[in-house]
Parts: sequence; structure tokens; C-alpha cells
Amino acid sequence: MFGFLRRPKVRIDIPRLKPRDDSASYPKVNLAELTPEVLPYLGQAAYVQLAVFEEVSDAIAAAPTVAAKQALAPAASQALDKHERLVAEIRRRVDVPADVISPFVAGIDRYRSLVRGGDWFEQLASVYLTAGILDDFFTLLAAGLPGDIAPRCVAILDAETGRRAIADLLAEGIAADPVLGPRLAMWGRRVVGDTLLVCRSAIHLTGNQATDEQRIEPVFTEMIASHTRRMDRLGLTA
Amino acid sequence: MFGFLRRPKVRIDIPRLKPRDDSASYPKVNLAELTPEVLPYLGQAAYVQLAVFEEVSDAIAAAPTVAAKQALAPAASQALDKHERLVAEIRRRVDVPADVISPFVAGIDRYRSLVRGGDWFEQLASVYLTAGILDDFFTLLAAGLPGDIAPRCVAILDAETGRRAIADLLAEGIAADPVLGPRLAMWGRRVVGDTLLVCRSAIHLTGNQATDEQRIEPVFTEMIASHTRRMDRLGLTA
Repeated sequence: MFGFLRRPKVRIDIPRLKPRDDSASYPKVNLAELTPEVLPYLGQAAYVQLAVFEEVSDAIAAAPTVAAKQALAPAASQALDKHERLVAEIRRRVDVPADVISPFVAGIDRYRSLVRGGDWFEQLASVYLTAGILDDFFTLLAAGLPGDIAPRCVAILDAETGRRAIADLLAEGIAADPVLGPRLAMWGRRVVGDTLLVCRSAIHLTGNQATDEQRIEPVFTEMIASHTRRMDRLGLTA
Repeated sequence: MFGFLRRPKVRIDIPRLKPRDDSASYPKVNLAELTPEVLPYLGQAAYVQLAVFEEVSDAIAAAPTVAAKQALAPAASQALDKHERLVAEIRRRVDVPADVISPFVAGIDRYRSLVRGGDWFEQLASVYLTAGILDDFFTLLAAGLPGDIAPRCVAILDAETGRRAIADLLAEGIAADPVLGPRLAMWGRRVVGDTLLVCRSAIHLTGNQATDEQRIEPVFTEMIASHTRRMDRLGLTA
């Protein structure tokens, strides 16, 4: 199932994800072959952002100090803002956005229960790593949407995440506890697998396995490179 | 302890809280005698908004439908916005806002555990009723702050709450279940008592009980009138 993680294949020129600290340079290449229809794309992307909001909110409620709560607050509000802007895009097309979002709830909620983590630091690591991968993924797919919805979705998803503070809290914890780093490195390896499966399920597949792998691989290679940068930032090996 | 709820006393002219749906008409009278020092005021008000955010977020996570989650989202983001704007006011005065907020965490968290409610509807009713009372209270107190901080705090606290959607969800639930209304009416009576105690603890008291009661009473009378309007809106008797 993770063949696309291992096999070097024909390289296709796909847009590079910008490092999060960089200035704006959005993916421009047409990824229409992988991108699902507009409404399922928006519904799933919107629910992912709502899920990120809920996970960050939960981490705020569980935070050990007021300072940590405050550091996390922007990540919650940015995710909620992205959710609301994606819902506004859905509402331009249908009257009841919940109908478009609902089909994705059960699957994503199941995934969330897998990657939630056993304590506050695992929870933070999950949000930081999984939301990073999912933002990258939906940003890349957005480029394949038809018409002017593509740049609008890229602008929504590529906006400020407020998650730099999560990396700082993790780095502090890792510096203070020599056991935490190795534990989070293991945890990071686990959540990336589950997250890539969610991404794969969102892709429009032809059913021809060889063709599909070849189309998917460069996208996932790019996403894994970004993931590795996020792990590096924590001083962890991906 | 609740003498101020019962005894008719000398009436003092205090600012009327505007009904939430009304246009802007802020309290203007100086309530300096009741208002605590600026930093404790800001610290407590900021933590109250963070608590409201956390309670709404928890209700979003527990919501039975995506539509209900979306209806609640603005209430979460508005509370977080108020929190962040109050923290910005603290940061104009001290470097570490958390130091100003932390003294209020234990007391307010204890209060939250008392008023959280046993199910989703009680949780919604608690947020709607208690956040309403607390916003009113800190808005009234703000008028007693010195200098230009007073109108800035009134503007922060009196802003859009996003909580009309909570009342709508409650009204729907009450219409669908004949047992829910009476249960929430009982619950509302309980949470108002605990909330008024929190408000009382935030007031600057002289220590002279007769004087204190006389100063506090008109403020609480005004707050209870607003609370009664919120209960009325749900079709419940306060």
C-alpha cells in the first residue's frame, strides 16, 4: 500500500510546496487528473479544517499553563477561519453546506481517533504534523480545480496557520525531557502513515494501479519532503 | 449571601445594558467604586473569554451534526477574539500577560466545573446564560476603568458574540422535546447563582457590608433583568 513511498519512478514536474516561512509562491501546475470534483473537494477540505480546529481547541483546554493556551489560540482561530471560508465557497454552490461535508465526517473522525495521541505532547505533535500534511495536500490538489476556485482555495489553505507556536511548545518540551524526543519521533512516523492514507482516499483514482501510483507518487514525495522539514524543525528524524 | 437579589434598596442610576440585538448604546456612568484595578480586571476578563471559548469549543466537538458545529463556530471565534484583544491590552502594560491572568485560573476553572452541565443541551444553556451574564458584568465594570481603557474594553466586550445561534439550537431542542424546557429552566436557575457569585468575587468591596450591598445591588438587578430576557427568549421562566 505504501509502494509510492519507496519506488523511484518517472519524475513529473509538480509544484513545489513553499516552506511555511517563505513568501507567497503558489503551486501553478494543473493537477486536475488527481483532483476530485469541486464539491467533494470543498466538503472534505472544510471538514479537515474543522477537525484541526477541534484538535487544537482540545489541546488548549488541556494545556498546562495559560501561556501555552495563548500560544495555541491563533492556530485554533486560523483553522476555524479556513473552515468558514471553505464553507462560504460551498454555500456559493449549494444551500446546505452540511450536506456536502457530512459524507466525510465518519472517515475523518475515525482517522482522528487513530492519530490523537496519548498525552498533550503527542496531541500537539499530531496537530502540527498531520495538519501540515493535510494543508499541503489540499493546497496541491486545489491547483487541479476548475476556473477561479483554484486560486481562491489555494489562498484559503495556504494562509497563516498559527502553528509555528505548536512547534515552539514541542521544541521546549523536547529540550526539557530527553525521553520525549525519541518518543515523538516514533509517534510522528506513525501518524504520517495514517495521514497519507487519508490523502490517498481523497484522490480521484483511475482504477489502473500502475497509472495511479505514477500520478500520485510525485505529489506524495513533495508532501513527505515538507513533512521531513517539519520533523527537522523539532530536531526529530522523520 | 444572595441578599442583594431579594431586598429592594435605594435605587442608583446605573447604565442600562442594551439588549444584545440593539444598536450601540454603551454604559457611560462611572462605576469606579466597584471596578477593580486595571490589570486584575483585564486578567480576569481575559480568562473568562478564554473559558467561554473552551466551553463553546467543547460543545462544537460534542455537537450531534455538522450543521450544529457550524452554527456554534462563530461563538467560539468571537470569544477567542475578545480574549486576544484583552490580552493585547494587558501586553500594553506588562510583558507577560499570563502572569496577570494566572491568579484567576483556579477560581474560574472551579466555577466552570460547577456550571458545565450533564449533557449537550445543558452545556449550551450554560454557555448561553453564563457568558451572557459575564459579558454584561465586565461591560458594566469597564465603565469604571480609568482613562481611555474604559471605552476600549466596552468595545471589546460589547462586540458581536455569535451566541444567537446557541439560543436557536436550544429553542429547536426545547420545541422537539417537551421535557427539555423544564429541565433547562431548573438548570438556568442553578447556573445564574454560581455566576453571580463569580461576579461578586470580582468586585472591589469596601468591607462595610451595608455599603457594599447598596453599591452592588443596582448592578446585579440590571444583570438579572438581562438574564431574564435571555431565559424569555428560550421560552423559559427565570
